[in-house]
Amino acid sequence: MDNSIANKAENGKVTAAMLAIGDELLSGRTKDKNIGYLADTMTQIGIDLTEVRIVADDGQRIADAVNALRAQYTYVFTSGGIGPTHDDITADAISNAFGVECVYDDAAMKLLAEHYSARGVEFTSSRQRMARMPKGALHIHNPVSAAPGFHIENVYVMAGVPSVFQAMLGSILPELQKGRKLFSQSVVSSHGEGVIGTELAQIQLQYDQTMILVVRSHDQEEVEKAIAAINSMLKRLE
Amino acid sequence: MDNSIANKAENGKVTAAMLAIGDELLSGRTKDKNIGYLADTMTQIGIDLTEVRIVADDGQRIADAVNALRAQYTYVFTSGGIGPTHDDITADAISNAFGVECVYDDAAMKLLAEHYSARGVEFTSSRQRMARMPKGALHIHNPVSAAPGFHIENVYVMAGVPSVFQAMLGSILPELQKGRKLFSQSVVSSHGEGVIGTELAQIQLQYDQTMILVVRSHDQEEVEKAIAAINSMLKRLE
Repeated sequence: MDNSIANKAENGKVTAAMLAIGDELLSGRTKDKNIGYLADTMTQIGIDLTEVRIVADDGQRIADAVNALRAQYTYVFTSGGIGPTHDDITADAISNAFGVECVYDDAAMKLLAEHYSARGVEFTSSRQRMARMPKGALHIHNPVSAAPGFHIENVYVMAGVPSVFQAMLGSILPELQKGRKLFSQSVVSSHGEGVIGTELAQIQLQYDQTMILVVRSHDQEEVEKAIAAINSMLKRLE
Repeated sequence: MDNSIANKAENGKVTAAMLAIGDELLSGRTKDKNIGYLADTMTQIGIDLTEVRIVADDGQRIADAVNALRAQYTYVFTSGGIGPTHDDITADAISNAFGVECVYDDAAMKLLAEHYSARGVEFTSSRQRMARMPKGALHIHNPVSAAPGFHIENVYVMAGVPSVFQAMLGSILPELQKGRKLFSQSVVSSHGEGVIGTELAQIQLQYDQTMILVVRSHDQEEVEKAIAAINSMLKRLE
């Protein structure tokens, strides 16, 4: 499994996809906050977030999306659809996607039983469902509310509540392969894109892996050269 | 084309997918605001937003996503990747997806020429690119900044700037098939999901098309029945 991850990350390029799960995101009742947070985090550690999907709480759609994404990218991160509610079907859907049984994980049951016992709160059957995960999956530590996320091969399954999602992402960051860091530098121009678009296109032809007006490259020298060229063009337009 | 739309919307269920386009959304530099706005709008007019994808400014990925989505849903709405910048490749990608030529649209050229002429602003080749669209596509009116979006069959291509996206969406709303309106009602409970999850699951089994704790259904009577059942359960828990 580590092999497959290494293979997909060859040439120093590490890619990721995100799958946000939840009817409430598609109805507008909840506005997603996790996509932007993951995007920022991936950029900081040099992983290219390449695709994002949002799907409903529908087992088949979740499994199809996970299978499509995990075959294409180094990592797949999911948010939402785990927790104590009756319609949290993500653990089943991920198990189906991998063709493994969905089980009450012993270690998770123990951890949750202790968590609720320490608080004098009943460990109801709804709460026990939070210990369900694909057989053989590893835990993702949840320092906020105990119930763990899980990961299986290159798929990391995390909660949708932003504070918990962020904490879980923090838990797994040390173990992720980092990409080559992206260097980036900005030029602020009062000229509209219509004025500078044509010349920008010419400059971009010269510098691979750049984006205009934010210039980004794995090579800091290339960033500086491109920025100098843009600045010189902007000067001519003044 | 209207036939294919009607067929996909049979039984009063009208579905939609959104494709948000842009490297800046995946790098975190820009936080998307259009997905939530579209989700709210679709819910208001009874269209089920069923899937959302975010892809980079990559012609092949855009075309692949559009083709996957337009085959499955009544409507596909895209945001971003149209405008005067050199890397706006959406018009080409959509043209490729439909196998038609990407052309400088005569009416759009005239409209933009007049717009810039009236403001004493040069109609540069970069700006002229905003008139490019798949041959035969229809305009989506842009009351904010003139450059039109376009639609071809069931795919609506709109700008990524939220004010322009919202204005364009407003322009096309009257022509969209509306679904059956969703009725919705909320119950506020201080009990955590762990406490009420088990009983909620039982209630949900009795009411199709409902979501808990927000109950939503095309049938107002069903909403009221489910709400009454939830309230009665909550009362027993007090």
